[in-house]
Amino acid sequence: MRRIFVINGPNLNMLGTRQPEIYGRDTLASIESDCRTKAAELKLEIAFFQSNHEGEIVTAIQQARGNFDAIIINPAAYSHTSVAILDALLACDMPVVEVHLSNIHRRDEFRRFSYVSKAADGVICGFGKQGYLLAIEAVASFFK
Amino acid sequence: MRRIFVINGPNLNMLGTRQPEIYGRDTLASIESDCRTKAAELKLEIAFFQSNHEGEIVTAIQQARGNFDAIIINPAAYSHTSVAILDALLACDMPVVEVHLSNIHRRDEFRRFSYVSKAADGVICGFGKQGYLLAIEAVASFFK
Amino acid sequence: MRRIFVINGPNLNMLGTRQPEIYGRDTLASIESDCRTKAAELKLEIAFFQSNHEGEIVTAIQQARGNFDAIIINPAAYSHTSVAILDALLACDMPVVEVHLSNIHRRDEFRRFSYVSKAADGVICGFGKQGYLLAIEAVASFFK
Amino acid sequence: MRRIFVINGPNLNMLGTRQPEIYGRDTLASIESDCRTKAAELKLEIAFFQSNHEGEIVTAIQQARGNFDAIIINPAAYSHTSVAILDALLACDMPVVEVHLSNIHRRDEFRRFSYVSKAADGVICGFGKQGYLLAIEAVASFFK
Amino acid sequence: MRRIFVINGPNLNMLGTRQPEIYGRDTLASIESDCRTKAAELKLEIAFFQSNHEGEIVTAIQQARGNFDAIIINPAAYSHTSVAILDALLACDMPVVEVHLSNIHRRDEFRRFSYVSKAADGVICGFGKQGYLLAIEAVASFFK
Amino acid sequence: MRRIFVINGPNLNMLGTRQPEIYGRDTLASIESDCRTKAAELKLEIAFFQSNHEGEIVTAIQQARGNFDAIIINPAAYSHTSVAILDALLACDMPVVEVHLSNIHRRDEFRRFSYVSKAADGVICGFGKQGYLLAIEAVASFFK
Amino acid sequence: MRRIFVINGPNLNMLGTRQPEIYGRDTLASIESDCRTKAAELKLEIAFFQSNHEGEIVTAIQQARGNFDAIIINPAAYSHTSVAILDALLACDMPVVEVHLSNIHRRDEFRRFSYVSKAADGVICGFGKQGYLLAIEAVASFFK
Amino acid sequence: MRRIFVINGPNLNMLGTRQPEIYGRDTLASIESDCRTKAAELKLEIAFFQSNHEGEIVTAIQQARGNFDAIIINPAAYSHTSVAILDALLACDMPVVEVHLSNIHRRDEFRRFSYVSKAADGVICGFGKQGYLLAIEAVASFFK
Amino acid sequence: MRRIFVINGPNLNMLGTRQPEIYGRDTLASIESDCRTKAAELKLEIAFFQSNHEGEIVTAIQQARGNFDAIIINPAAYSHTSVAILDALLACDMPVVEVHLSNIHRRDEFRRFSYVSKAADGVICGFGKQGYLLAIEAVASFFK
Amino acid sequence: MRRIFVINGPNLNMLGTRQPEIYGRDTLASIESDCRTKAAELKLEIAFFQSNHEGEIVTAIQQARGNFDAIIINPAAYSHTSVAILDALLACDMPVVEVHLSNIHRRDEFRRFSYVSKAADGVICGFGKQGYLLAIEAVASFFK
Amino acid sequence: MRRIFVINGPNLNMLGTRQPEIYGRDTLASIESDCRTKAAELKLEIAFFQSNHEGEIVTAIQQARGNFDAIIINPAAYSHTSVAILDALLACDMPVVEVHLSNIHRRDEFRRFSYVSKAADGVICGFGKQGYLLAIEAVASFFK
Amino acid sequence: MRRIFVINGPNLNMLGTRQPEIYGRDTLASIESDCRTKAAELKLEIAFFQSNHEGEIVTAIQQARGNFDAIIINPAAYSHTSVAILDALLACDMPVVEVHLSNIHRRDEFRRFSYVSKAADGVICGFGKQGYLLAIEAVASFFK
Repeated sequence: MRRIFVINGPNLNMLGTRQPEIYGRDTLASIESDCRTKAAELKLEIAFFQSNHEGEIVTAIQQARGNFDAIIINPAAYSHTSVAILDALLACDMPVVEVHLSNIHRRDEFRRFSYVSKAADGVICGFGKQGYLLAIEAVASFFK
Repeated sequence: MRRIFVINGPNLNMLGTRQPEIYGRDTLASIESDCRTKAAELKLEIAFFQSNHEGEIVTAIQQARGNFDAIIINPAAYSHTSVAILDALLACDMPVVEVHLSNIHRRDEFRRFSYVSKAADGVICGFGKQGYLLAIEAVASFFK
Repeated sequence: MRRIFVINGPNLNMLGTRQPEIYGRDTLASIESDCRTKAAELKLEIAFFQSNHEGEIVTAIQQARGNFDAIIINPAAYSHTSVAILDALLACDMPVVEVHLSNIHRRDEFRRFSYVSKAADGVICGFGKQGYLLAIEAVASFFK
Repeated sequence: MRRIFVINGPNLNMLGTRQPEIYGRDTLASIESDCRTKAAELKLEIAFFQSNHEGEIVTAIQQARGNFDAIIINPAAYSHTSVAILDALLACDMPVVEVHLSNIHRRDEFRRFSYVSKAADGVICGFGKQGYLLAIEAVASFFK
Repeated sequence: MRRIFVINGPNLNMLGTRQPEIYGRDTLASIESDCRTKAAELKLEIAFFQSNHEGEIVTAIQQARGNFDAIIINPAAYSHTSVAILDALLACDMPVVEVHLSNIHRRDEFRRFSYVSKAADGVICGFGKQGYLLAIEAVASFFK
Repeated sequence: MRRIFVINGPNLNMLGTRQPEIYGRDTLASIESDCRTKAAELKLEIAFFQSNHEGEIVTAIQQARGNFDAIIINPAAYSHTSVAILDALLACDMPVVEVHLSNIHRRDEFRRFSYVSKAADGVICGFGKQGYLLAIEAVASFFK
Repeated sequence: MRRIFVINGPNLNMLGTRQPEIYGRDTLASIESDCRTKAAELKLEIAFFQSNHEGEIVTAIQQARGNFDAIIINPAAYSHTSVAILDALLACDMPVVEVHLSNIHRRDEFRRFSYVSKAADGVICGFGKQGYLLAIEAVASFFK
Repeated sequence: MRRIFVINGPNLNMLGTRQPEIYGRDTLASIESDCRTKAAELKLEIAFFQSNHEGEIVTAIQQARGNFDAIIINPAAYSHTSVAILDALLACDMPVVEVHLSNIHRRDEFRRFSYVSKAADGVICGFGKQGYLLAIEAVASFFK
Repeated sequence: MRRIFVINGPNLNMLGTRQPEIYGRDTLASIESDCRTKAAELKLEIAFFQSNHEGEIVTAIQQARGNFDAIIINPAAYSHTSVAILDALLACDMPVVEVHLSNIHRRDEFRRFSYVSKAADGVICGFGKQGYLLAIEAVASFFK
Repeated sequence: MRRIFVINGPNLNMLGTRQPEIYGRDTLASIESDCRTKAAELKLEIAFFQSNHEGEIVTAIQQARGNFDAIIINPAAYSHTSVAILDALLACDMPVVEVHLSNIHRRDEFRRFSYVSKAADGVICGFGKQGYLLAIEAVASFFK
Repeated sequence: MRRIFVINGPNLNMLGTRQPEIYGRDTLASIESDCRTKAAELKLEIAFFQSNHEGEIVTAIQQARGNFDAIIINPAAYSHTSVAILDALLACDMPVVEVHLSNIHRRDEFRRFSYVSKAADGVICGFGKQGYLLAIEAVASFFK
Repeated sequence: MRRIFVINGPNLNMLGTRQPEIYGRDTLASIESDCRTKAAELKLEIAFFQSNHEGEIVTAIQQARGNFDAIIINPAAYSHTSVAILDALLACDMPVVEVHLSNIHRRDEFRRFSYVSKAADGVICGFGKQGYLLAIEAVASFFK
């Protein structure tokens, strides 16, 4: 059974309360719960990690090796500033899918660039919670 | 029954033969066939349009109004150069999902910017044929 | 009797329905009708052409030579991207007036630059339908 | 009876003698005289102000409030450098039309950008003296 | 008794009427009155100057020398364009505090840069009228 | 009684020893002590937090909600690089004042831009320790 | 016998009448005639295509595959703006020579960049009609 | 007898007291006195004008026509920001020499660009007071 | 006996497994072991620290003061993004040598700029493990 | 009999050994020999010069005047950096053809710009040795 | 008796024949002769050097030390490209005056920047041959 | 026995006298002497070359092939401007180490970029004379 590791970046622990007009009203818990259901349907194991610390996310990605078969990551603000997360992903040796809740291409100029995209196999943005579920399906299709 | 309009831009009629190391070996016909299957599963009507002409794509988008409930578009090269397609989409008054076969963020600088993203609700890139199927699911979720 | 050729670019066929908060509620038909009235007052012949195709607009400009004495053009989205229309106008050998319905200088950065302006004798923007009528008067004054 | 305030910026007092190959041979007096005729035709009151001083133009715009119903301004060189005039216009609470004698989009790069355009309802450039008359008509159409 | 010179730039004479959603509803008179009260509390003399003319502000700064012990300046639009005011301040040989009513870092790109900041000891922005009172306190603390 | 949360970013724990020609000789402890005195005068509760970790500052800001009524933050080096802190502040739903000890506009180019300013109500820089006291007063004035 | 496909872009149908001071007095017909003679000398088949439509040029390039052994293209204005033509050429799998009548490096800044050059084996510019003949020789040398 | 008009821009009235480490210890009066001596030697009439007002300098240049045979101008801070002075000089129809006391190419980036240089026949910078005397000689050589 | 502190940034704990074609096959442990040998030869004490956390590296640098006589740092990804580490190094008051395993000047544009270089006495890059040994020698030469 | 001067820039003496995957396996001697044959066919005299010194190339161009009727130059690395060679060519008063072995538009960004192109009548790049022969033909066509 | 060294850069040996509409009709010999006369009047020794080689100019500047008391240099094309000449001048420890025949600020963008200006005490441009004589006077005034 | 070729660029012959506050007091002779000692210790042959001429350095690099086994180069000013030296090094087919006496990353912007770094295996800067000795050791380690 394949294992997916879902990593969420800074401030995503606040989902549902933080600027719902941009990020929607779903909480991180409800997203994780829906992901679990979708993963079960697709016969995939799934685990979750959230951190506000760039360094902890780097470490989490390093430890994914051997423990997981794919990474789904919403790097949030670190998308735009973290070369360290990019480097960790470049070395992780498994499929990487980048997810954003909002369509970052319609927001501030500085939110349109993502270092992480250089290490991602695919990118999904603008679909809110649904984006995570699409990412799980995308990963599932990689395993076929 | 909701209707989806799938629009493919220039050179996508050549899929399968054109630079398969970048775009994969699927032909446009096989993509359309898989889309039809997925749409049927989700109880959606689906129609397809491909053109190498910017103007024909603009006209197709204009005519979608009243005839379709959502647009899935892979604008290919016109992503990076067509304000006219952007304007047509801004006026079409229905959900728009942008799809790219390759992860454009890992390619030439000029391929990383898409005018169309400014009019899209969501963007999916890097998953090859699978990207279209994810887009159909995303659209289906909008209809719920 | 002098003849004016009024060329309208992509999406202007949708006027009145497309984003009326930006482009106003006048339809292209009503603009053309008002232009006809104004031209008649000024004893000018007038003809109209609209296309979503860059190439058709290029051809129309080429064919204006010998058939018309001045061009009024609202290149819409092609203002910002078409060197081909610029080149056709540079070669047309008659007065050219560029019209925009909205004040493009108050909109997105990429809408502030117009290739066409390099070939235009004068530019009028921000007056909605009235801009066309002013352009006709401007052209009339060139003929005096 | 509606009142229009026509403001001319630096060096326009020299019209007719200054670089006539760019600005034409009309003097400011002849332009004002033609404007008066046009305004009379349209049943509008009109007044004129010219200054080489950025500060005086700012003050003139401030004082327009309550005394005039629309501003027509040719900010000349201050178009490109004056945020103070932009700010005064943003606060004047009446229609503003910007006029340039030459087509600034065909000239030096630094002459293509106008701060004033951000506060103008419409912009007219490249028609010489005729541009002022078109501006008066444009203003008249705002009053209908 | 130490003397403070408060200089206000272009359009600030219009405060209270000009774009109150950005600049608030306080008039310049009420700001000056509050400043007088604050200065009295802190046992400081205070004088005020407002001008729409860059040159008059330059001259006022030159004349401050010998007559005042500190300058508080809200250069308004001239913040972004006046090297002449910068040069006058660099030569005035007394503490300079720059004040802006609004937080200029949240506004248009061209409003984020201030030449004057290069000559200021400190900068306070975004606090409306209160910013002037904080500036007076800041100056008072320099005198201790 | 209103509660203020004062957050200090990286290296500010070294104040007094680190480059005193730029940052002054005050220690963080002496700044906090003066802030306490000022807060007491103004009948405000006050608490302090310093961290060299971007993630800890993000978390601290998240936890401010419900526990504090305003944030005063000196983000130090993270001003220039942290979108994560910007996002946390955008979501904190209370007044934010940004403080810098030095006038960042007179320093290296890369120190002149602050992401945090986009989330701040007001910014105070260049007054050394006094800047914190002015920020407390500014916050106090928000509460009136 | 090897076959060459010569593609001419927008406005080149107007050669000889359009801005002869830049493009010379040769008509497209006379260029094609000279090309035929040169091709005959070198024992090459040759065919010609001109279009003002970006989309038609894309389609023509797609259809060259199997029907021709090399492409000579003067993309004219589309050199500077068409990623779609670039993509078609990248997929055509035969030698490509780009020709320009004028030396584009001595003209406007925006005419100095050509997307097409990224797909061309060689580029020849500045020799007028002669450039096509040199291109035919260059292609002939590829076939040796 | 030929007449030279020497125009000095903002803050030059403060020479000798303002930042003498950059601008030297000569006062404007002593510079004018030395210029008078040099002009007398060369049998030239000379007159002087200094203003802190951009508008007054524009007017002075306009009035030079017919009254003077050459302009020597040290535009000081307005070098870098005034298109209005550039325009006045472009229209003055006599030789123009630009002088700077300091070598502006060794100072801040924004001091290295001068609009005025576009209208000057020659530029002299970095020689302090001596620069004015060299300019007078340069003008004298124009008259030979 | 002088003490050297060797600090390694994010992902360097993965050396040997991460992208060996760029970073080589040496593990961090083997590098540290070789460094120890080299330090012993040169009669220097040496200690090591690695972290994926920007904040921990900042703290480590702060604590170096008094405990070490020189810092050798390979900031890895934080080279390009961390002003906080730059600030900590600027305040550490001892020699700093920056080391990179690969020649960063031959890699992606964003990897060519290092904030840390502004605080380093010297920089060594491109020599793999050997670069650390050269850095130790360089530090040793500072102590002579 | 017309005389052509073929100038080759730095490192071209190494042709055949230097990076043959970019520059091909032809030596400079074999290129010169083929050029001689082609020139003889076309009844042209031809001479060659190669230097690694910018200054020697400048001098050679200066001396071409009177001795030659056209210059063919492959400036190699100096294309991108030498204004001195540009200036010499601008003054040489005869036709100039620029040749590059590789298609410089497909290489590093800094290799895409050539100062020399501003002085060349035509440019040929990407055809290896054949490019020189085409240049000779182009020159021959100028002499007709 | 003080000694001046006049250094002329590439292509200046061609003066009088090269583009006289830009550089005038004076030959280098006539400039040197006039300089000798002027130097004699001012009781200065003078010597001349011209080279097309950047390296020879660097060497000449190095050797000036001890042999001359001031350098007058017209670096011509090397102004814009030579850091080596800049470095030599920075080390020469005597006054440096930079001269240009034409006003470089009115020419191509790349001719407006001079590395040499960073090492020059003063710069004189736009006065043709007269510029050298002014430079000699400027140097003479340094010696007083 | 392996042979190292040490190449020094322009102005390095002046070491010890030229700006010792930046480049130190060591002469080139003393550096070469120390290099000889270090090479002898490591059983390496060593030879030296210095030139102020870009072209001579290019030639020296070309001739290194077959005569040397590694190049150590301090390109000095040519680092920032010479594509010709870059090209020579790219073709020399042996290890290249770039050395700078000062830390170029702390100096003027234009000194931070080195073309040569694109051809170097490793770069060492900021260690003065010691940098050459480190480079010799680095080269020695390549030979192991």
